[in-house]
Amino acid sequence: LLSLSSLVCSSAAAYMDEPNLSKSFLPHYEPDHGGAVDSSQDTRLPVFTVDYDYVQIPYEVTLWILLASLAKIGFHLYHRLPRLMPESCILIAIGALVGVIIFASDHKSPPVMNTSIYFLYLLPPIVLEEGYFMPTRPFFENFGSILWWSVLGSLLNSFGIGLSLYGVCQIEAFGLTDLNLLQNLLFGSMISAVDPVAALVVFEEASVNEQLYMVIFGESLLNDGITVVLYNIFIAFTQMHRYEEIESIDVFAGFARFFVVGLGGVLFGIVFGFVSALTTRFTHNVSAIEPLLVFMFSYLSYLSAETLYISGILAMTACAVTMKKYVEENVSQNSYTTIKYFMKMLSSVSETLIFVFMGVSTVGKNHEWNWAFICFTLFFCLIWRTLSVFALFYISNKFRTYPFTFKDQLIISYSGLRGASSFSLAFLLPVNLFPRKKLFVTATLVVIYFTVFIQGITIGPLVRYLDVKKTNKKESINEEIHVRLMDHLKAGIEDICGHWSHYQLRDKFKKFDNKYLKKILIREHQPKSGIVSLYKKMEIKLAIEMAESGMKISKSSTASLESGRNRRVRRLSAAEVASMRDVLAHNLYQVRQR
Amino acid sequence: LLSLSSLVCSSAAAYMDEPNLSKSFLPHYEPDHGGAVDSSQDTRLPVFTVDYDYVQIPYEVTLWILLASLAKIGFHLYHRLPRLMPESCILIAIGALVGVIIFASDHKSPPVMNTSIYFLYLLPPIVLEEGYFMPTRPFFENFGSILWWSVLGSLLNSFGIGLSLYGVCQIEAFGLTDLNLLQNLLFGSMISAVDPVAALVVFEEASVNEQLYMVIFGESLLNDGITVVLYNIFIAFTQMHRYEEIESIDVFAGFARFFVVGLGGVLFGIVFGFVSALTTRFTHNVSAIEPLLVFMFSYLSYLSAETLYISGILAMTACAVTMKKYVEENVSQNSYTTIKYFMKMLSSVSETLIFVFMGVSTVGKNHEWNWAFICFTLFFCLIWRTLSVFALFYISNKFRTYPFTFKDQLIISYSGLRGASSFSLAFLLPVNLFPRKKLFVTATLVVIYFTVFIQGITIGPLVRYLDVKKTNKKESINEEIHVRLMDHLKAGIEDICGHWSHYQLRDKFKKFDNKYLKKILIREHQPKSGIVSLYKKMEIKLAIEMAESGMKISKSSTASLESGRNRRVRRLSAAEVASMRDVLAHNLYQVRQR
Repeated sequence: LLSLSSLVCSSAAAYMDEPNLSKSFLPHYEPDHGGAVDSSQDTRLPVFTVDYDYVQIPYEVTLWILLASLAKIGFHLYHRLPRLMPESCILIAIGALVGVIIFASDHKSPPVMNTSIYFLYLLPPIVLEEGYFMPTRPFFENFGSILWWSVLGSLLNSFGIGLSLYGVCQIEAFGLTDLNLLQNLLFGSMISAVDPVAALVVFEEASVNEQLYMVIFGESLLNDGITVVLYNIFIAFTQMHRYEEIESIDVFAGFARFFVVGLGGVLFGIVFGFVSALTTRFTHNVSAIEPLLVFMFSYLSYLSAETLYISGILAMTACAVTMKKYVEENVSQNSYTTIKYFMKMLSSVSETLIFVFMGVSTVGKNHEWNWAFICFTLFFCLIWRTLSVFALFYISNKFRTYPFTFKDQLIISYSGLRGASSFSLAFLLPVNLFPRKKLFVTATLVVIYFTVFIQGITIGPLVRYLDVKKTNKKESINEEIHVRLMDHLKAGIEDICGHWSHYQLRDKFKKFDNKYLKKILIREHQPKSGIVSLYKKMEIKLAIEMAESGMKISKSSTASLESGRNRRVRRLSAAEVASMRDVLAHNLYQVRQR
Repeated sequence: LLSLSSLVCSSAAAYMDEPNLSKSFLPHYEPDHGGAVDSSQDTRLPVFTVDYDYVQIPYEVTLWILLASLAKIGFHLYHRLPRLMPESCILIAIGALVGVIIFASDHKSPPVMNTSIYFLYLLPPIVLEEGYFMPTRPFFENFGSILWWSVLGSLLNSFGIGLSLYGVCQIEAFGLTDLNLLQNLLFGSMISAVDPVAALVVFEEASVNEQLYMVIFGESLLNDGITVVLYNIFIAFTQMHRYEEIESIDVFAGFARFFVVGLGGVLFGIVFGFVSALTTRFTHNVSAIEPLLVFMFSYLSYLSAETLYISGILAMTACAVTMKKYVEENVSQNSYTTIKYFMKMLSSVSETLIFVFMGVSTVGKNHEWNWAFICFTLFFCLIWRTLSVFALFYISNKFRTYPFTFKDQLIISYSGLRGASSFSLAFLLPVNLFPRKKLFVTATLVVIYFTVFIQGITIGPLVRYLDVKKTNKKESINEEIHVRLMDHLKAGIEDICGHWSHYQLRDKFKKFDNKYLKKILIREHQPKSGIVSLYKKMEIKLAIEMAESGMKISKSSTASLESGRNRRVRRLSAAEVASMRDVLAHNLYQVRQR
């Protein structure tokens, strides 16, 4: 922790020199930078010189990333801490600490977390990772419930919270009468963006049943997109409201836009996904840049969608889901590992940075406290989430073979943690349209802190206490073969019955995929069967595991020899030869069975 | 190529909207970005909107990277092309094409390749990759020759070319009399920065002998650093020259600075390398961010060094060399793969981008043609390199057990390809100090084009024609054990003789390393022997290869079944089961021998 605090100080010091936000993040692209050119005062040739402006942006970005990484390492250094609370709590706390240091030394609000940084650079890696590692099959098996819950749940929460708060604002004693209906609705949409990463981590640890996991996962995937769209529509309405009345045609346009933004985003993503898959077909001689194509094409889909004001989040998710299958068949094993782990790394760093930034941005002068508004916001957030969960799942359960139990619904409603999305949207509010932006920011932060700290820490024990249905799914070739057989069987039965459902749909898509898509997108001479490629993956995983476990045996034998080291040169050499003989004896099977 | 040209057009179109360089690369951090806020003219709610400004920077960066990647893919699509010419030729040509398109449509110089972008973002990945993958042992075995050649060779070339050109400038008929000695010396230092990547690729393919390879490799590693330092010193002198005379104390300060910059950089890098290695000791629970630490710490070393005006290139190289050994022992296998391949990817993309940018920047109005200056520059570049090679190796050969043959020296002098460093330094010249900057830029570009195209294309045939001594080094456990034994033996013999050489030095360092450094920097319970970890690496490599070759057998059997697919559901299923049985029969040994 010593190294951590020293880094915090150095990073804080970096900011003290540069209290101005806009300057701090503007690059200095001086075409004339050339060594000691600027030192025209001192005409002697200097042996030392310092030029901080030149490297400022990359330097500060690097320092922030390192601070976040070290905070993460520090958190995981002791095994107890990760069991007690989610990572986000500590990261926010550290961020707040840094914020306090900067604030105390400078008496200005710390100059971090610009919203365009969030939406352009920090969010995409997280969205990409979620989309890319989405378990496709269970997602589409629960697609109906997921769509039903994320779309209607978000809408119900947004409007519910917005309208209830508008009701509260009518009470004059609270001093909130200047907040009109539109502003309240906008705040409702903003505060409905949930970020259940912490909940998902708990679910994975407790290995809860798949359908519960998938509903929360799907919500985390779609909810952001939906609330951002709602938010933008409300902003546009507020804008219009200043000049003229909102007519019914505008409300229709709003609905139209909702669909354009959502479906357009998905379509966009699919197109980019196919283009990206097609490109990786031709990279067999330049496998070094394969990971880059995956990252760049998905980022391009996000940016292009954002340019056209359609949902970048949905575009990127769709792009990742589409390309994944084909890209994985095309790229080399090493590129596959690089893509996988680099994606996880990027997303993990983004997440860490976001929480740290959130902590930093908490400190400052941009707050307005209003007991009534803040308490009611918190209350309505909890109430409306619970209400919408029980109402919507009551309906959707009627159409499901395996209904969501009462316990499941309780867990879903409890996992409505708020995070960076709400926070960024609050900071994004234009002050000229929202004179009480500070109140909104404060209320959002209170809700985030409450849900992350209180709910985040207690959801683990709650899941364990309620003892929800567990899953015991494991990946195996045997299961994969049986699942496939059952798929064909069910599709056949449905064909005979004349019943049309997702089994049929999947069967049709698979045929189309095999007949056309795979032929276009996947390299020739690649195994075209999903089973074969799954088998390949597992075979390689097994091989690596075996090689590593072989090493573990040898490791222990090496460790015992350590004490005998460090004596004399000849002895050392002999000990190593002995160790080598030992290792060879353990692992010779590899050579033998060739 | 169709998709390529369409991308070129779209990218060019992106620039046509934005002809202003400085604006094009300045970010638009509008804190008020929020959906349709800006469309205050049209008060109806728009269903579609476009906001390009918001995403401009990341969008254009992504497009450039994609353009470069696609150019690379296109180049490697046909097997013949890479044998005919180095990649850089095609990339420069494509860049020039893009430049012509932008120039023709806009009548302005294309707005790319800002030098601070080069030094802050494009160069570091290449330096890191070179440093990280440097073969440590042969490098330090040939350290004397490498240092001798890179330092003295660079100095000899810089001063030789500078002074000769100054002589040419004295002839009034050429119209160059306004170029003074300092400006010529500066130009000499700039044009001496070689970039022998293309030569290294050829050497690797032809597997030339190790010492030849290492000298060129070492030159590529150190030469950049040295010429940049010289360049900065000359810039500072030119600056001073405007106000007063340069005194002998300044020349001494220049020499002092030369050492401060060089040795300071190396020291800086070593410190950062140790810190980075120490940090990875504690990442066992957060292995996802291990690659990040490697990248961030080495980048930080580069930036910190640049801030203090000491050589960032040398700092980063030293950092990479220092950390590599310990980091590789600490991080997980997956992190290791990710670090390795992501580093290669980043460096490959940087290189590609640099060449494309170089092509783009060729086109424009910033040229001045002077036959005499340009021809003499080219002539002196060739002459001085040949002279310095033969002179310096004549001396160093007297101290070597295996001298560099005449053929080796010929190849070394022919591999003096110029590249991005010279080019960036030329663009970096401050116009107020160098009124004839345009002439320098043009001359530099001509030298680059000549060496890259003429020498780059012919060096492959030349190496093959001269038939230089080949190497047949292969990595194997057996060899490693014998080499170690020989090391200890030689150190022992030298100990007895009382002779002090690098065997002794290495032995002393190894003892120190084992006794202190490894204990501090490497995690506990890791195999501490280099042989064991090498064995582990090779074992895993073998395991992956075996799993993949097992798949190749199965692949062919799957391919033969493809014709039998696409018939009916039942058949398909049966075929797949059969294929599975086949694959299992081929690979069951893995399960059996467990």
